Amino acid sequence: MTVPNEPALLFYAATDANRDLLYFGRFECHDPFIAFAHRGRKVAVLNALEYGRGLKESAFDEILRLEPLLAEAAFLPPDTRPGPADVLALLAARRGVAAFTVAEDFPAGLLERLRARGLNVTVGTGAVLPEREIKTVREAAAVRAGNRVAAAGFAAAEALLRRARISGRRLLLGGAPLTSERVRLAIEIACLEGGGLALDTIVAGGDQACDPHCRGTGPLRPHELIIIDIFPRHTASGYHGDMTRTYLKGRATTEQRALVAAVAAAQKAARRVLKAGVISSAVHAECVKVFTARGYETKNTPKGAVGFFHGTGHGLGLAVHEAPRVSAPVHTALKLGAVVTVEPGLYYPGLGGCRIEDVAWLTETGHRLLSKHPYTWELA
Amino acid sequence: MTVPNEPALLFYAATDANRDLLYFGRFECHDPFIAFAHRGRKVAVLNALEYGRGLKESAFDEILRLEPLLAEAAFLPPDTRPGPADVLALLAARRGVAAFTVAEDFPAGLLERLRARGLNVTVGTGAVLPEREIKTVREAAAVRAGNRVAAAGFAAAEALLRRARISGRRLLLGGAPLTSERVRLAIEIACLEGGGLALDTIVAGGDQACDPHCRGTGPLRPHELIIIDIFPRHTASGYHGDMTRTYLKGRATTEQRALVAAVAAAQKAARRVLKAGVISSAVHAECVKVFTARGYETKNTPKGAVGFFHGTGHGLGLAVHEAPRVSAPVHTALKLGAVVTVEPGLYYPGLGGCRIEDVAWLTETGHRLLSKHPYTWELA
Repeated sequence: MTVPNEPALLFYAATDANRDLLYFGRFECHDPFIAFAHRGRKVAVLNALEYGRGLKESAFDEILRLEPLLAEAAFLPPDTRPGPADVLALLAARRGVAAFTVAEDFPAGLLERLRARGLNVTVGTGAVLPEREIKTVREAAAVRAGNRVAAAGFAAAEALLRRARISGRRLLLGGAPLTSERVRLAIEIACLEGGGLALDTIVAGGDQACDPHCRGTGPLRPHELIIIDIFPRHTASGYHGDMTRTYLKGRATTEQRALVAAVAAAQKAARRVLKAGVISSAVHAECVKVFTARGYETKNTPKGAVGFFHGTGHGLGLAVHEAPRVSAPVHTALKLGAVVTVEPGLYYPGLGGCRIEDVAWLTETGHRLLSKHPYTWELA
Repeated sequence: MTVPNEPALLFYAATDANRDLLYFGRFECHDPFIAFAHRGRKVAVLNALEYGRGLKESAFDEILRLEPLLAEAAFLPPDTRPGPADVLALLAARRGVAAFTVAEDFPAGLLERLRARGLNVTVGTGAVLPEREIKTVREAAAVRAGNRVAAAGFAAAEALLRRARISGRRLLLGGAPLTSERVRLAIEIACLEGGGLALDTIVAGGDQACDPHCRGTGPLRPHELIIIDIFPRHTASGYHGDMTRTYLKGRATTEQRALVAAVAAAQKAARRVLKAGVISSAVHAECVKVFTARGYETKNTPKGAVGFFHGTGHGLGLAVHEAPRVSAPVHTALKLGAVVTVEPGLYYPGLGGCRIEDVAWLTETGHRLLSKHPYTWELA
């Protein structure tokens, strides 16, 4: 039987930056390398530094050595120092690859070099590995493990907040002010000990929390809302957890309590409709409905947006942000087996910010939560 | 005076994956965003989630809001959901940008979309920000800070190795085997406490160390060489340290001592010639000369390469691997102010692996070391 000569899916990237390639080859590599799928086989080209590890660790069906290919390519025109384009020209000729297809994030320079060498390369639109959006039981378990790591971080943060003493406008612990940095360090250590790596953890109090991506710096204050967002990578699997809780050390005002209650209600409302087949924007609309009904306005100000100005959620897996998005402009149905965060939030400088985030794995009838940690937020 | 309408340098990336963009805007952002330089001004387009933080933290001269631009672009042809290409078409028309230039790693999909909208986009070759290769006093200090973090990691690892007890073929500490994972955890915690984040730290003993990028797993053995490579990101600055030491717990054989001595001698030989203006491959050749003189052969085997099969070093800064490379195929001169690692290594399964790595900042007459930690390796 003749195998149809379909375009070969081609990658050239480091897996830090390209999680599709990690999904494809199940092999972490910090320097860009060539990989492609051709006639049902996954092929990688690795340098001497990675070759042995690739043989042992990766899911590639075939691994070629880079150096001999570079040496051969050195005799091909154009007469410059050979690079990945030359190696690919060589391989395409040798294996009868008539055409390549690449993802939108494929490097433009290599695209032009391949075309200059007469290769037929098409830039695909949309996901190159759409199956990545659908999580297997094993992948869902890995995300759950990532969230267990995050939960260990919350426990560590709560322990510090509980032990801290309120002294006027300060929180003191062990004689020194309790800062975002100290809480973050405790979280990061707890995550490491729990088997994961928490990058860029957010511990932001007061108005800092109103910039949802501000990591937070300096002293945390009593009686202010503190957003903690932990999205660790589970080391053994490479999959991420992603959870957010909002805290307050001291005594909350009526306005703060109403804000937190609104966010919790929005999350519940979104979860009520969250299942395979539901339109993404409809889930987001549930959150908006709750906020609107309770009088929380979303608008731009000269200093930035206030209210609920981000999406309700995003896919989670080998990347912290991946398909699908759960947000207003996305009018497609969420797929069976997708894993998404549910993380409404409200942000008003002066009053503070609140976000609550959990992770759901979509089923026909609803979803299973892949994250678990109490919602206790007012800490005495 | 009329400012000449030069091509605008254009980025569309997340700074995790594109450190040029981080260098350009001094603003960490985990989602791709538009940034460009036009008429001497640095402009970014940020979404509502990043806008406020961008105003406060970044080095951009001007920050535009993404959402209103998307809303305007929605009325432009082609009539699809507007994206970055449409926003850029709008901005190019409004500001009279006649042409863009992008780096080789610019996303191919966006390149094609921009061209489909009639924009003139050239893919540059080589560094888009060549000045990034030359480190200022401040940047060198940041790398030095990164290496201080690494040194804290080595101290933690050594403490564990010293405290461990040899019991037959095992190393025991606190009643349990001392593993790569336990040592790595201690290193990662020490790095966090030292103000940095150690990603993918290598703690590899025995034959595992012969795959230079194998992170290491399982029990560490007495009387075996253990390579520890720590390349933390200094949190405050974003710059990396990168250092390697090789250890042995127990008693080394004559062959192991000769191996370590050869690597140390190779590093010294490379450092003897390392200064601004020297040809990159000539530095590498110094290491090769030492190894050859001592009878250490480099070759391929069916299981992977053995000997000295990687480059002598690489540039270090906002990325762990950046320009310039110090290796055999690079015949250009190293620049004044470049920061490079010097890390010869030898790897022979059965005997083990050894690598010693420090970091140098090149001057007219030599270099200053930006890394400092003892070379004691045989631990009783």
